Amino acid sequence: MSKTQVTIPKGTRDFGPEIMAKRNYIFDIIKSVFQKFGFQPLETPTMENLEVLTGKYGEEGDQLIYRVLNSGDYLKNITTEHLQEGFKKFTPKIADKALRYDLTVPFARYVVMNKGTLHFPFKRYQIQPVWRGDSPQKGRYREFYQCDADVVGTPSLLCEAEIVLMINEVMDKLRLSDFSIKFNHRKIIAAMATAIGAPGQEAALAVSIDKLDKIGKEKVLAELQQRGFSETQTQALQPFFTLPADAALAFDSLKQHFSHIPEGLQGVAELEEIIAWLGSYTQYSDVMKNLRLDFSALLARGLSYYTGTIFEVKINQVQMGSVSGGGRYDNLTGSFGLPDVSGVGFSFGVDRLYDVLEELGLFPETSAQHTQVLLCNFDTNSAQQSLPFLRQLREANIKSELYPEPVKLKKQMSYADAKKIPYVLLIGSEEIKQGKLTLKNMATGEQAALTLAEIIEQLRSK
Amino acid sequence: MSKTQVTIPKGTRDFGPEIMAKRNYIFDIIKSVFQKFGFQPLETPTMENLEVLTGKYGEEGDQLIYRVLNSGDYLKNITTEHLQEGFKKFTPKIADKALRYDLTVPFARYVVMNKGTLHFPFKRYQIQPVWRGDSPQKGRYREFYQCDADVVGTPSLLCEAEIVLMINEVMDKLRLSDFSIKFNHRKIIAAMATAIGAPGQEAALAVSIDKLDKIGKEKVLAELQQRGFSETQTQALQPFFTLPADAALAFDSLKQHFSHIPEGLQGVAELEEIIAWLGSYTQYSDVMKNLRLDFSALLARGLSYYTGTIFEVKINQVQMGSVSGGGRYDNLTGSFGLPDVSGVGFSFGVDRLYDVLEELGLFPETSAQHTQVLLCNFDTNSAQQSLPFLRQLREANIKSELYPEPVKLKKQMSYADAKKIPYVLLIGSEEIKQGKLTLKNMATGEQAALTLAEIIEQLRSK
Repeated sequence: MSKTQVTIPKGTRDFGPEIMAKRNYIFDIIKSVFQKFGFQPLETPTMENLEVLTGKYGEEGDQLIYRVLNSGDYLKNITTEHLQEGFKKFTPKIADKALRYDLTVPFARYVVMNKGTLHFPFKRYQIQPVWRGDSPQKGRYREFYQCDADVVGTPSLLCEAEIVLMINEVMDKLRLSDFSIKFNHRKIIAAMATAIGAPGQEAALAVSIDKLDKIGKEKVLAELQQRGFSETQTQALQPFFTLPADAALAFDSLKQHFSHIPEGLQGVAELEEIIAWLGSYTQYSDVMKNLRLDFSALLARGLSYYTGTIFEVKINQVQMGSVSGGGRYDNLTGSFGLPDVSGVGFSFGVDRLYDVLEELGLFPETSAQHTQVLLCNFDTNSAQQSLPFLRQLREANIKSELYPEPVKLKKQMSYADAKKIPYVLLIGSEEIKQGKLTLKNMATGEQAALTLAEIIEQLRSK
Repeated sequence: MSKTQVTIPKGTRDFGPEIMAKRNYIFDIIKSVFQKFGFQPLETPTMENLEVLTGKYGEEGDQLIYRVLNSGDYLKNITTEHLQEGFKKFTPKIADKALRYDLTVPFARYVVMNKGTLHFPFKRYQIQPVWRGDSPQKGRYREFYQCDADVVGTPSLLCEAEIVLMINEVMDKLRLSDFSIKFNHRKIIAAMATAIGAPGQEAALAVSIDKLDKIGKEKVLAELQQRGFSETQTQALQPFFTLPADAALAFDSLKQHFSHIPEGLQGVAELEEIIAWLGSYTQYSDVMKNLRLDFSALLARGLSYYTGTIFEVKINQVQMGSVSGGGRYDNLTGSFGLPDVSGVGFSFGVDRLYDVLEELGLFPETSAQHTQVLLCNFDTNSAQQSLPFLRQLREANIKSELYPEPVKLKKQMSYADAKKIPYVLLIGSEEIKQGKLTLKNMATGEQAALTLAEIIEQLRSK
């Protein structure tokens, strides 16, 4: 193979050290918050049996699932007749495994397979890649990470309150201050459908109002009429576009609209309970002041499996879709034969968070995973004399390395620059005689003659 | 689908919270050591273009690579004639991508694709799953993690010395004390072939002597004769079976055997240099005393791409293959059109390390990732009053959760047990009135009435 031909598959990426450091910065913050709230890690296999995945993501989703060819002579029992049936019927005969398409279905499969030993409520997080054969475009990849946390086995609305708190804490730790956590309840959308005289039409209603941010109110209403809603019905929607911005006032208004629609009242009551839990949690503290909760009766979220509260998080300073979202579902495991397991979960979009932090310049200057000090290599003798210092630095838990060859100092300095190593240590025969080593700050260029103990002290305080 | 049918593909595994905590314990130790020595993370895509992988792992390896079906109508240009050519010729027509088989080939591909921007020496580590369509058996899976660290772009033997130090530190942190780091040099094996009158036959020699531990000396010699070595030649091998255990004495003996074989002398000299570097690093310290280096002229390691020093790590207390291994190679990237890139690398077998730690009972009792305290939920009122305490515990960075429903206390306790949560906090109306909360130690059953500040103090000191 000629070197010019070496490529990776379209829509996939290598993550080199610089990008990994930034991605790990995000993952570490998310994991630490998940764990602080009692969530535990789960990993499922990359491949699932095909029948676990098919039929879960709709016709379009099914087409995007990557199938894995069976091992060995998979054509053994294949005839030319099979070939003529077309690829859709042919595929299951030669491929019985497929790559994970999301983390939700494998999680449901895991819960069902382990229901005898799991202790409910089961709080798990899962951070793994998924694969979709979509056409790649800016911000859309064929391999990308999902980052989910779910609680299953309890209807308690405390879980919804905790999700808000977790989102808030992750944003805070990422130093993202200008964001909104939009929330709504699927029952409010269902009640809206009833209120406008289209009971049971909430799915069609949701699909259109979900586009409000993108296409605006007029086009949403026009689309609803195309979908068969009458003008009287879309007119009746008007009050829901002009609810007060304050959640408590909006709830009061909805309670009037829904006075004869129990489902709607229940939706509002659940949201009020969640806010009450948040109030208890944050009393005597400033946390509530910083909670950027934003009720929107017109937030719909596409996925049809949500049945209760739904969330979506937007960063206001940048033009980008939501960076997090989720909601409550009442029948996640039903398709695997285990009905009535209620759960609530949410997910962070790591690629989007990455782009947001990059755009706003919010990644820390140096990564905690970087080498902190490079020992320069002048010659074999100095390298030998440097090694005990290197050992002591590492014993003090300072990430450090000796340049492995006695090449020109300039080359060693440019190595330190490229690896973003903040300090360089010069250990020549003079330095060793005097018991002081020269520490150079790569950012300022300053040099100081210090004992090893002083150097360790200084690097540790960073 | 009926629930009884839900399964995962043969040879793959779910990692639930308990197993994940133990695996992360191992990964975290390995990562921290890699980083302390200046290695940086890399991740490559799960799928590689088929031509990157084929021809790299031998005929047998090629058969074990998982192929991924092309998206869309992959049968569009397929005729019945293609079908009759058999699956080996058919596969590339319908599958142009495949799952990563190891981390070495994708790393070489990455180095070649990025050679213009990478700064050499490039030190990377990579911890990702790989897939092989092997028949599953005890300890052998179709999806498993590899855990590699490599330095490329320098011939410096300091890198070999650092690999020994890294292995030593990982074993030490895992509290594995009874292990050996066996080492040898490919040039010593080549020189042995020359010395017995079979120059150039080192590959055949290596394949047989690699089995010494498994089948014993007599069978190795018999196998060599089957492979075409004469009895005179296998007789001439005898001295190499009885080299002194002490490395320095063994080296002296080899220098006599190889007095007219420059290649052999070079191999010995390189090992001596590595030991000298280790001596410099560990002078004035106890590290060298604990280094379990074990020279063996008969260590071969199967992989043919090694050209210099080779390593292998065995745990002496358990019956198991090596848990780590590696070596220097001089032409990793040659097949991608970039010759003469020397590198040295090694790998940990995480599944084997897991089994060793399990067998020896060396996993820590509780994981740092577990919830440290569960707040019991008596009723809505007590839950509301507990929430500010929960917030303060989390603000003090203590992993904590409130049971989400006011169910029977026994059920909450068994939840704490199942999740290995070491403390339970009882907050009833009495407790709140008196300003003292009841902290129960789940291991001892002891209860104490403490203020929140005292509780935070106690949990932090754990």
